Parts: sequence; C-alpha cells; structure tokens
Amino acid sequence: MGNVLVVGAGGVSSVAVHKMAMNPDIFGPIHLASRTKSKCDAIAASVKARFGAEVTTHALDAMDVAATVALIRQTGAEIVVNLALPYQDLVLMDACLEAGVNYLDTANYEPEDEAKFEYSWQWAYQEKFREAGLTAILGSGFDPGVTSVFATWLRKHKLKTIRQIDVLDANGGDNGQAFATNFNPEINLREVLAEARHWEGGEWKTSPAMTHKVEFDFPGVGPKNMYLMYHEELESLSTHFPEIERARFWMTFGDAYITHAKVLENVGMTRIDPVMHDGKEIIPIQFLKTLLPDPSDLGELTKGKACIGDIATGEAADGSGEKTFYIYNICDHEECYAEVGSQAVAYTTGVPAMIGAAMVLKGIWREPGVWNMEQLDPDAFMDMLNTQGLPWQVEELDGPVAF
Amino acid sequence: MGNVLVVGAGGVSSVAVHKMAMNPDIFGPIHLASRTKSKCDAIAASVKARFGAEVTTHALDAMDVAATVALIRQTGAEIVVNLALPYQDLVLMDACLEAGVNYLDTANYEPEDEAKFEYSWQWAYQEKFREAGLTAILGSGFDPGVTSVFATWLRKHKLKTIRQIDVLDANGGDNGQAFATNFNPEINLREVLAEARHWEGGEWKTSPAMTHKVEFDFPGVGPKNMYLMYHEELESLSTHFPEIERARFWMTFGDAYITHAKVLENVGMTRIDPVMHDGKEIIPIQFLKTLLPDPSDLGELTKGKACIGDIATGEAADGSGEKTFYIYNICDHEECYAEVGSQAVAYTTGVPAMIGAAMVLKGIWREPGVWNMEQLDPDAFMDMLNTQGLPWQVEELDGPVAF
Repeated sequence: MGNVLVVGAGGVSSVAVHKMAMNPDIFGPIHLASRTKSKCDAIAASVKARFGAEVTTHALDAMDVAATVALIRQTGAEIVVNLALPYQDLVLMDACLEAGVNYLDTANYEPEDEAKFEYSWQWAYQEKFREAGLTAILGSGFDPGVTSVFATWLRKHKLKTIRQIDVLDANGGDNGQAFATNFNPEINLREVLAEARHWEGGEWKTSPAMTHKVEFDFPGVGPKNMYLMYHEELESLSTHFPEIERARFWMTFGDAYITHAKVLENVGMTRIDPVMHDGKEIIPIQFLKTLLPDPSDLGELTKGKACIGDIATGEAADGSGEKTFYIYNICDHEECYAEVGSQAVAYTTGVPAMIGAAMVLKGIWREPGVWNMEQLDPDAFMDMLNTQGLPWQVEELDGPVAF
Repeated sequence: MGNVLVVGAGGVSSVAVHKMAMNPDIFGPIHLASRTKSKCDAIAASVKARFGAEVTTHALDAMDVAATVALIRQTGAEIVVNLALPYQDLVLMDACLEAGVNYLDTANYEPEDEAKFEYSWQWAYQEKFREAGLTAILGSGFDPGVTSVFATWLRKHKLKTIRQIDVLDANGGDNGQAFATNFNPEINLREVLAEARHWEGGEWKTSPAMTHKVEFDFPGVGPKNMYLMYHEELESLSTHFPEIERARFWMTFGDAYITHAKVLENVGMTRIDPVMHDGKEIIPIQFLKTLLPDPSDLGELTKGKACIGDIATGEAADGSGEKTFYIYNICDHEECYAEVGSQAVAYTTGVPAMIGAAMVLKGIWREPGVWNMEQLDPDAFMDMLNTQGLPWQVEELDGPVAF
C-alpha cells in the first residue's frame, strides 16, 4: 500500500481515482491535483458519494516543477500518476526525479506546437531513472498500454515470436451529438489528422490521413469501418520486439466524424499554430475544444460498446507452426457509467492507469528505468484486468488477417 | 458631377471606386474611408495604376458619428456610399442627416448580435430624411438592388401587376479552395444558416435552412442546385408591390459548400454570441472569418460565370393575359477581374452601388425620403447597367415556374 498523487482531473483521471478508491488494500491516501481545483473536488465528491472514500485535492500548475516537487513531498506519494495533457510529461518526469518518486503516464510526450508522436524525448530519461533507482512506466492506458500487454502475454504464452500485429480499436458508442470526440478533442484531432504511418519490413510506411479504410466485424460491436492511422505503441512494439515485420493500428470512425474532421481541417480549425485574431493569439484547435462538448459530460448519453484488441501472427509456442490469435476486451459504455460515472473510452484508459500504478506500488513492476508496457511481465497486470472491470478473451483465428 | 465619400474598403468597395473613377463626368473627387487606411490606399493605388485617377483616402471608425460628420464636411461629399458592414448602416444614416448629405447602401441594417434581416430600423428614418430634404437609397447592390429594379422595369414595361416572382442567384464560379465564401464569410454564413422564409398568400412561410432544393438550368452557367432562402428584397418587394402573391429567393450552393456550412454550424463555429476562451470573449463566426481566405484575395483564382435575375408572372401590359418573363444578367468572373481586379460577386454588387450613386448625383433619384430600389423609376438605371458592365436580357417563358 502506498500513497499516490494523480495529476489531471479529466475523464480518465476520474475513472482512475474511482478505481483506486475501490482498491484500498493497494492505494493509501489518494491525492488529486489539477490547475482547476474545482474539477478535482467534483471527482472527490463522486468518490465520497459512491464509496465513502476520501480523496485529498490540490490546485497545481504541472508546468511548475518546484511546485510539483513540493506537493509530492507534502503528500508522501510513492508514485505520480500523470493523467494531465501529454505536453506535461517531461516536466512531471523532472519533478519525480527531483522528489525521488516513481512515475506513470498514459500517453507519450508531445510538444504543444508540433503534432509529432514519438518516444525519443521520454526514452532519453532512461539513465536518469535507472541511476535514481526509480521506475517510470510509459503509456499505461488501453492503447497504448493494454494493447502492448496483450502482445507481450501472447508472446509469453502462445507465440515464440510475433511476425505481424494489428491493433484494432472500435468504439461502437453513440453519444447522440452532431459531433463530439470521445476524449480531449485537441489530442483526438491531432492524432486523426496526422499522416498515417505503420511499420513494415524494417521501416515506416506513410499514407495520407484517413485514406486506408477496411470494414471489420468487431466482437460485441458488429461491422464498422476502421482506418489505418499512426499510434504510439507501433513505435515501442517495433522497437522492443524487433522480429515484428509489420505493425499497424486501426481505429473506427463513422462517416459523419470523418466529414466533420475534414471540414474542420479545411477551414483551419485544427491548426495548432497561433493565429492573430482581434489583437490576441488564438490557437484554433484550442478554441475548437472550447466550443465542442466536454467528453466527460457525455458519459450519461453514451450507449453501445467498445472493443479494443490485437490480432497477432507468429510462430506458435508449442512448435505447431504459424498461428494467429485475436485478444480483446469488450467494454459497455452504460455499465462503465453506472460503475464510476464515465463512459467506456475514459474507463478503458483510466482502469489500466490504476492497474499500472498498482503494479508499481505492489513492487511487481519496480525495475529502475523508463519502461514501455511490453517490456514488463504481463501476468499480474492481465489478472487485474479480469478482476478490475476489463475482462479479456483470446481466440485463435484461421490465419493471418486478409486486409 | 458631385463629390462622393465611400465608406468601407472590401471587395465591393474596390469595384465601386474603380467604376466611379471610370465615370469622371459623374463623380467629382472620390474619397474613400475605412478603419484600416492601408486597405483604402491599396484600392487608390490600383485605380491610379489602371486609370490614372486620384482617390483620396482616410482612416475612419464609422461607428463614431462625430468623426464621420467631420469627414463628410471636410470632403464636400454630396453622398455617402456605405459599403462597410451592415452593422454600421444606422450610424452612417445618422451622420448623413447631421451633415446634410444623401446616403446609399447595399445591404440592410442588422444588429451584430442577432441574425435578423428586416428593414424596420431603416424605414424608421423615412420622416427624418424627408424633412431634411435628403435622399437615402437602400440596397443598391445586385440582390437586393438590381433584382428589384428588374422587377420594377418588368412592371413598368411588360406586366401590369406581378402575381409571383422568384429571384434566382447562381454563382457558377470556382475559386479552387476547399471552402471559401464569395463575400464576407460572416455575412454570408449568417444568411445561409438562417431559417428559409418566403412570402406567400399574404404571410411569411418558413422552413429550416437549406432544406428546399431545386435544380435549375441557368443561362450561361448551366444546371445547378439552388436552395430556397430568405433575402431582404422579399420584404421590400412584397411591401411595395402588394399584389404579389408569392415571392421567393433562391441561391445556388455546391454540395461541398453545404457540408462545410452544416459542419461549422454543428460545432458552433457560426455562433454570433461571444464565447469565453482563455479569459477573452471570442465571437466564433468572427474567428472563422479570420481563418478563412479573404474573398477579395480570390479574384484572380475564380473562373466561371454568375447569373442573377428574376422570373416574374403577372397580367401582361398589352392585355394579352398572364405572361411570364425571365430577366437576368450573366457576369464572367475572369472578365471582371481583368477590368477592375475583382471577381463577379464583388463586381455585381459594386457596379450597381456606383450606378445608384450616379442616379442621385445626376438628380434622377432625388426625391427626399428613404427608398428601396423598386420604388424608383428603373429606366435610367437599366440603361446604365447595359453601359457599365452588367448588360441584361429579358425573355418570355412559356408559363409560370413549375417548381
């Protein structure tokens, strides 16, 4: 059992904090900090109402390293769980090093003024964390996160090597809005409109955003159009499992979503550079975020299921030749909302964040250094997925994917 | 010949000022004022380069009545030609009354915070202008403007009465942009997204925006989808020609334009109320205007033709029963650009503004009061359309429109 400091008070944070409060044998006093303390207070009030548990809240500008170090020391936290914006990853890693505590996040660092998704900035902290005897866990959400743990579990128990892997993310949920993203619209649209990129034959292959579409029949969700796009686990999987010949990421989008995203791009509303307007610099995508519904307000309205998983092909562990496995979780928006007051997209990210922090606090993942999820032993994490609301299934397919 | 003060320095103003300079027998010294003097200077430089004529430029905040009065007196203008935003109509009418000069505009007054199109505010100035012995001409663009003069000309020469009238506005131009409006995007989107309204059987009938679509084969342009929408001449035509049973306005839009407009409305980017963003009030549609291409920059890129006109049905002047006439102008984007450096949408508005001002300066339209275009004798105006770049044609149709 250990103290924890969660930074950030959006939908994912709310789920993670609720789930921590549901596991008092693992998580000691829970501290929650964000620039807007009232958002922390709302989460704390919900936790109190649902489970009678206390969450201590704080106002914190996470860009202020000295203030963060002081708060870490004040709370006695053993780990900082970073559920703020990815722009803040590096400053929070700095604060953890200075305060001498462990670190966990769910999304890789991005510079605010560039839609560039890569681990180089965070991997550069490897020696610092190792020398300090501290552990930093990168990308402990669902994708990235569970999708990497799934791959590692398959590689440990079912396949000797992985020749090719496809990560498939389907959200069959309907929130009834003309247009609303399922998580932070700024982060969502930056991802979706970025050039598609996948790993194949030892190099990155690129294609224009949203141009490669395949229909796939998802368990629990049904047939959906999914689009090839870049996602950060492709970099860590292809780095840590060098035998991988091809790694791709697919996400489902409805036609209306695609139309909205393209129009917003056409008119410049997804630009991440500042525009002078009426004497003030405005970053268009941030103003768009102000206009769009807050995804965490849509939990109550969202119906349907999400299904995220991996299809991996490789040499079977039992020496029976090449085999293909599909490993996935199906998550129901309304059930998530009933349990913790958030829909499945926040739930599927927040629960693995809690489990990753539990792995560190329990001492199971405590090797000093900076780690992606596929570098760590998957078994205890996989067990907790089953008991903490994200049960998974694995099935053998007839052969490799045909798309 | 008389001095003129043009207020506003957008695309329409540029056309009107160029055409005034091409008619030195009518227009004395030309003065041009706008909040941003550099925009006036650019127009003056173009006029100088093309025709060797002088335009005197001034910085003016048109919302400041005292400053406007002072400038009118300084310039010795006999008429103020208001080509600024429609929000400024009333303050400029006030300034004209105080300075004792005539007034002309191309679009009816709108309050900035309400998309409400009606003449009531400006018609309320009728007595003031009459008592002052001054003339105010409202809506001397193409639509409104020429479309009303067309109706009056038909009613004077071809039809005793007008039973039904359709105004048809087709822009067959292509500017090569993913999305760009042909005139001020703020004004354009306010119009397009407003509830459709037409006059029928003595009352206004309404329907949701962009829901009533008809394909029409436009002379010079070809078949285009046109949409029923409200436009301000419907109010003045049905008021001044009380025999009209049905008056409708149609404008063409491509599918991509409709999609962009609907998406922008869905996400709130066409809102005209202020939104708090990062500690400052932002009006979304004004920020959208900042992001979109400036229509006056697209002149060089625009190809194709525009066709605007009226189809009117009524009792024939010669007693031969009911007849239907189609009267229209065809305008070529590239020819306009070659002549005055603007595309056809600005040209078709700016030329009638110049002609309306010429009617006042020549003493042809000098009855004291506030007048819509269909209240004035059309013949001299129609002659000038033919000689000033907007030649018109009239043809008899087999019967009333079938749509």
